[in-house]
Amino acid sequence: MSSSVSPLAPKSVPDMPVIAGIRLATAEAGIRYKNRTDVLLAVMDKGTAVAGVFTKSKCPSAPVEWCRAKLKGGKARALVVNSGNANAFTGKTGRASTALTAKIAAKAVGCSESEIFLASTGVIGEPLDATKFDGVLGRLAEAAEPGDYLNAAKAIMTTDTFPKVATATVKLGKARVTINGMAKGAGMIAPDMATMLSFVFTDAPIAPAALQALLKAGVEDTFNAVTIDGDTSTSDTLLAFATGAAAEHGAPKISRASDPRLKAFVKAFNQVLANLSEQVARDGEGARKLVEITVEGAKTKASARKIAMSIANSPLVKTAIAGEDANWGRVVMAVGKAGEPADRDRLSISFNGIRVARSGARDPDYDEAQVSEAMKAPEIAIKVSLGLGKGRDRVLTCDLTKEYVAINGDYRS
Amino acid sequence: MSSSVSPLAPKSVPDMPVIAGIRLATAEAGIRYKNRTDVLLAVMDKGTAVAGVFTKSKCPSAPVEWCRAKLKGGKARALVVNSGNANAFTGKTGRASTALTAKIAAKAVGCSESEIFLASTGVIGEPLDATKFDGVLGRLAEAAEPGDYLNAAKAIMTTDTFPKVATATVKLGKARVTINGMAKGAGMIAPDMATMLSFVFTDAPIAPAALQALLKAGVEDTFNAVTIDGDTSTSDTLLAFATGAAAEHGAPKISRASDPRLKAFVKAFNQVLANLSEQVARDGEGARKLVEITVEGAKTKASARKIAMSIANSPLVKTAIAGEDANWGRVVMAVGKAGEPADRDRLSISFNGIRVARSGARDPDYDEAQVSEAMKAPEIAIKVSLGLGKGRDRVLTCDLTKEYVAINGDYRS
Repeated sequence: MSSSVSPLAPKSVPDMPVIAGIRLATAEAGIRYKNRTDVLLAVMDKGTAVAGVFTKSKCPSAPVEWCRAKLKGGKARALVVNSGNANAFTGKTGRASTALTAKIAAKAVGCSESEIFLASTGVIGEPLDATKFDGVLGRLAEAAEPGDYLNAAKAIMTTDTFPKVATATVKLGKARVTINGMAKGAGMIAPDMATMLSFVFTDAPIAPAALQALLKAGVEDTFNAVTIDGDTSTSDTLLAFATGAAAEHGAPKISRASDPRLKAFVKAFNQVLANLSEQVARDGEGARKLVEITVEGAKTKASARKIAMSIANSPLVKTAIAGEDANWGRVVMAVGKAGEPADRDRLSISFNGIRVARSGARDPDYDEAQVSEAMKAPEIAIKVSLGLGKGRDRVLTCDLTKEYVAINGDYRS
Repeated sequence: MSSSVSPLAPKSVPDMPVIAGIRLATAEAGIRYKNRTDVLLAVMDKGTAVAGVFTKSKCPSAPVEWCRAKLKGGKARALVVNSGNANAFTGKTGRASTALTAKIAAKAVGCSESEIFLASTGVIGEPLDATKFDGVLGRLAEAAEPGDYLNAAKAIMTTDTFPKVATATVKLGKARVTINGMAKGAGMIAPDMATMLSFVFTDAPIAPAALQALLKAGVEDTFNAVTIDGDTSTSDTLLAFATGAAAEHGAPKISRASDPRLKAFVKAFNQVLANLSEQVARDGEGARKLVEITVEGAKTKASARKIAMSIANSPLVKTAIAGEDANWGRVVMAVGKAGEPADRDRLSISFNGIRVARSGARDPDYDEAQVSEAMKAPEIAIKVSLGLGKGRDRVLTCDLTKEYVAINGDYRS
């Protein structure tokens, strides 16, 4: 594991405001890591709505199965997250472990087990000893304070090189409401759904069904548009919690996602998701370049997405970017292998605004020196114009470096 | 580019017999490389049948388009292959270049342009100056001899670290017929079709349609079951040529692929394809391990193939193998992301015959030291049993090393 912070990390961390109805606490449970926090407990006030989207893996982790089942109730009182062990592919032991964790948490918080949400991240296939939570969660429930989101984000890290938080404040009706989010994830990152663990908290009074609809729509162009290595985790979890505390200050209670009063909120909510998902790409394992791939002129948005993902997941494109080589031939290759409608002779490709190919051949004005200089930037924008239709999409990824191989060739042992 | 031979290269090179009706010659045309041969001319006797399968890329190279069009005639008199420049994504220039090359070759050999087959491999997007073939092909046509397949295989290499040839001799009717094949390919290797350039020659008298059917069936479990990096070239070409010269020694003329007299021939033909495609995996860029992935107990063979390819293309599985880590959790991840039917709790996984997981959890007899020792082998067999049906498939790949990143991060410049 790399100990140095990604060169693509945000230059500053936002101040994270308190959200009424949410209290946080972290601890060192010694599940895998030493001398760092590895358990987060978030305690929510009664009446908190919950929504979630999860990995589409056919082999999901035990906590994912737990959350999916409990989501039907729509209410949450606590979230327990541990890092270091994903409790995935642990068979009956895994299910027993989630049940025991929920039981301990429910007792600590004083609620029903069905109001407990769980997420685990780390190594797959190792049994998770939930008895380690006994005592710890009780102490955390007592210690929990309206609070320190940055420390919470630190407690859920695995190979992440920096904690990921984002916040927004926005008007809902005449009241100000706040949205705080955190995420972890650096590898095994790909749709669908995508990616990692992320938790978003708000004091807005939004009913569970409306919150679920917002979340589902919001991930499409944020977390679902990020890929590090094309590998989809068995544990990907994004949960949103709405305490409703802002109703005391006059925020209207929202029961439908289509409510026009939500407009500004939805925008801010999606910005928090976009901010967090971009931070995940910025912390891609071994990443030295943040890569934005825009495909336009496709038959449809879905077609553009598929082509953009084909480019974003191509090892040859990613290694070329690591080598600061504007190798547009490999971009053509990735367009071609996507299987979507494309006409070689209409393709145009640019790197950081410099067109290198047009109408199916090298741009006549191509200047190797100019392009080489542009490729030294830490952020690379690749734009592909297909010239077929109006479909457009954008995804984020990072380059593929020797450091990625080093991190993942020596992760478990 | 690496100059050292892959540690996975075959220990010996077979003696390649002469095939009546085929003559070969190579030259240094200086297209890209210095001090090495980079052009191959194969001249076939009149009446030679031809068949071909090509990349499924939506952006195929100009030579691929040329061959597809000429295949309709079913007859070949010459094959021209150049390495160093793929003549792909070169627009109208590319089409003009293939036409000019065919014209020069037709004149040199004394045949119709529609009997000329072309293949180019190397950098994409650079115009190929076909005038370099002027003179060269005439000299090659004169110098061509029944021959040196190993030197021919050397002339078509790019990042390959060793030339790839295979041969088989088999009875067709009462006559002995020979099958010789060569291949190149080390990166940008993935179905479908797959992979690279490969040419197979035989003196068996097989009609074009029958040869095409044999080839199409033969690639399915050979070239189409190999992946290096999941990236599909725009130039993948596999051509088969049957001179029919063995008819003079009593080999029966075959007009249908289903002819029962072909049984032994088909087996030998497929063995040559399997041998060549395995050599491609053994020469995967930066490869230190040959990896065979077998999936059994899937719903169907197609489902098994999709799961096996998901494992074979997973950067996390491939880096774990590079790190000699039997990280079966990542195999579960790759099974899960394939999207095919799978039941986590029925999964069993073994590495080199040692079962590490069964019934959805770590094998109770799992011995880390024993598994670690087994992972040091240069050939790793991963077997996944799904326990759902009778679908079974096998694919070949290699590990993902820092060397792969080094080779591809500094290829073009």
